[in-house]
Amino acid sequence: MKIRNAFYAQSGGVTAVINASASGVIETARKNTATIGKVYAGLNGIVGALQEEMVDTSQESAVDISRLCHTPGGAFGSCRYKMKNFEDDTREYERLIDVFKAHDIGFFFYNGGGDSADTCLKVSKVSEKMGYPIQSIHIPKTIDNDLPLTDCSPGFGSVAKYVAASIKEASLDIASMSASSTKVFILEVMGRHAGWIAASGGLASDKEGDAPHIILFPEIPFSREKFISKVETTIKEKGYCVVVASEGTQYSDGAHISGSLQRDAFGHQQLGGVAPTLASMIKQSTGYKYHWALADYLQRSARHIASKTDVEQAYAVGKRAVELAVEGRDSIMVTIERNKGISYSWSLGEASLARVANMEKKMPRSFITKDGFNITQQARKYLQPLINGEDYPPYKNGLPDYVSLRKVMVPKKLADYFDV
Amino acid sequence: MKIRNAFYAQSGGVTAVINASASGVIETARKNTATIGKVYAGLNGIVGALQEEMVDTSQESAVDISRLCHTPGGAFGSCRYKMKNFEDDTREYERLIDVFKAHDIGFFFYNGGGDSADTCLKVSKVSEKMGYPIQSIHIPKTIDNDLPLTDCSPGFGSVAKYVAASIKEASLDIASMSASSTKVFILEVMGRHAGWIAASGGLASDKEGDAPHIILFPEIPFSREKFISKVETTIKEKGYCVVVASEGTQYSDGAHISGSLQRDAFGHQQLGGVAPTLASMIKQSTGYKYHWALADYLQRSARHIASKTDVEQAYAVGKRAVELAVEGRDSIMVTIERNKGISYSWSLGEASLARVANMEKKMPRSFITKDGFNITQQARKYLQPLINGEDYPPYKNGLPDYVSLRKVMVPKKLADYFDV
Repeated sequence: MKIRNAFYAQSGGVTAVINASASGVIETARKNTATIGKVYAGLNGIVGALQEEMVDTSQESAVDISRLCHTPGGAFGSCRYKMKNFEDDTREYERLIDVFKAHDIGFFFYNGGGDSADTCLKVSKVSEKMGYPIQSIHIPKTIDNDLPLTDCSPGFGSVAKYVAASIKEASLDIASMSASSTKVFILEVMGRHAGWIAASGGLASDKEGDAPHIILFPEIPFSREKFISKVETTIKEKGYCVVVASEGTQYSDGAHISGSLQRDAFGHQQLGGVAPTLASMIKQSTGYKYHWALADYLQRSARHIASKTDVEQAYAVGKRAVELAVEGRDSIMVTIERNKGISYSWSLGEASLARVANMEKKMPRSFITKDGFNITQQARKYLQPLINGEDYPPYKNGLPDYVSLRKVMVPKKLADYFDV
Repeated sequence: MKIRNAFYAQSGGVTAVINASASGVIETARKNTATIGKVYAGLNGIVGALQEEMVDTSQESAVDISRLCHTPGGAFGSCRYKMKNFEDDTREYERLIDVFKAHDIGFFFYNGGGDSADTCLKVSKVSEKMGYPIQSIHIPKTIDNDLPLTDCSPGFGSVAKYVAASIKEASLDIASMSASSTKVFILEVMGRHAGWIAASGGLASDKEGDAPHIILFPEIPFSREKFISKVETTIKEKGYCVVVASEGTQYSDGAHISGSLQRDAFGHQQLGGVAPTLASMIKQSTGYKYHWALADYLQRSARHIASKTDVEQAYAVGKRAVELAVEGRDSIMVTIERNKGISYSWSLGEASLARVANMEKKMPRSFITKDGFNITQQARKYLQPLINGEDYPPYKNGLPDYVSLRKVMVPKKLADYFDV
């Protein structure tokens, strides 16, 4: 078998553990030199392939590649770039193949969510059409946990741990302050279409009635009346109320809740996030003192409190992708499977890319309590193992010691490409 | 010497390490039974003393008291309660003394910031006036780090570590995304009057030019033009721009920046935080894609990433307060002193409460770069040791395992007090 190079790229929003997948890919490729030559990483994702801007990972030391395992963000850069419509115009995919040809790339490892699974599938199709063989393997990654056919997605467990720990900590804070001051705390979390991240906040409670008292999911239509009523009941019973709100919280007609807020006493309308919108509603309806937080990028880059399970799975899917490539496989996504049994264990599987692309896995209704405001025991059972274990990064001068790669670029061979 | 009981209370915004001070007080009192009887803790701060609602800490196990060292929030409840004006009306202070008399309390340990130092001083005065001896000792606590006469304040080092680590992590995230997506990231942090917390974000950079590129301090008047210009220059040079903004960022006339934003294209005015206000300015002036986060309570309750130095200092000031009481001292605050020498070390000192009360320590101008947008080497030298060392809490089921106290109440002896 001819030795060919591999291309690896990171796609979409990055996570605390996507670099662990990169580490899994590169370290495993380095052990399979009979099949794989060098691993070239796309600078800023797939855009790097289109523009022939690739990092030669063979120039990075073994130590630095292993340090990727504890470094958040996307070490090679990611992108939010939508490939041109494949059905109307395959030129962009053909450009990819041209770059792959020029650099003798026979393996395409794409590390991302649903969109990148779709791209992966199309690369596979174009390679066939153009008669240039590429094995195209998708490495799952999304904090949103909405990829189908895999029990969970690498990146999610660490966000879940961050959100649950943050809620646990902030709840102790507000519990201390509530007698004479703040009575409501709202944390807005990511997850525009699926409530998995918001749900993970529910793990902060040890027993029924503990904070968080209200979780708002995109899957459950928002009712201002029910929400305010639940806040008031909770404050009467507990003295304070902790809310986890998904950024995707919406009314039954699909309208985002921040778009429809009444003007306040000054005639101003609140712009922006879900948390300040909810805070304004509480102020208008109840007058309670509130605080709110918006974790934004902090939640998905918080490698300092990553889930060990998540880090291990992220590394494993990268490693397995290369192993499957070496076995000659094509057009598949590596999956994580939950083994049967009382205690949690997992193994790796695979799914055909044709089945993965453009499907979104939402929270099942059975994971959400009847009143729509919390998670069920079934959800806990699913979520809890994913945040298990700590995997602290090394520290230097009081801060996590993250790696910066050298990023030596692969010399270009083609003419510039201006279509991106 | 007659054995007398002690009263301990937590005041104002809680921190990740205020319970370590409580632990220091209670454990040290338990070792000094020849002088100190029981330690009663005010339920919800000083309000608990006024209302004769006190937790009998002798009912808590030694294990639980030691677990306070790794538990954030205020274990006995805190309060934002302003005592009535002492000069016009000493009734409220007299009520305190009545409660202390009824429960044979001879030691008053008040754990808080500037206001509580002032309360501590007044209790001392009233006790003299009423001929009932109370030794009044202030235990410093404030995330704002604005207490005078102490090198730093317990609570600050852990917020500083959280903010610096979060900026380091989020900067890796935005660096990955900036080529095709988000170009500006803003983190709003606490510190209404002093820029210490914002300054700590500067520790995230290893060398000049690293993120954060802009720090906004309350001490430096905000100029929209200079800010936008710095954002644009940074993006040109680095490809992205990371901003740490103090919630107290203000114009030269003292007006808070969020109050003066121009209406957006929809005629809406932005309400609330500094981060969304800055984001709107960037949108209006440059059109760059931005993300922003507001850490709020998460920053001051993040015990999971507490500074070991801070935890040790918080415990030590609690311990020393009791030791000083046993030595017969009164009307003082325990201080932290930075020892001379090349490597950081500290010891404990004390300051007269009369000198502490109502002074606020702001960032010296020499700690801020000439352009007003970053910290100097001198600031780094001051700040860095305060975030040194990790002190992870134990974990259970993937989350920090924080203690909940039993909180057995001391039986009341007096008539109800309705004036609070």
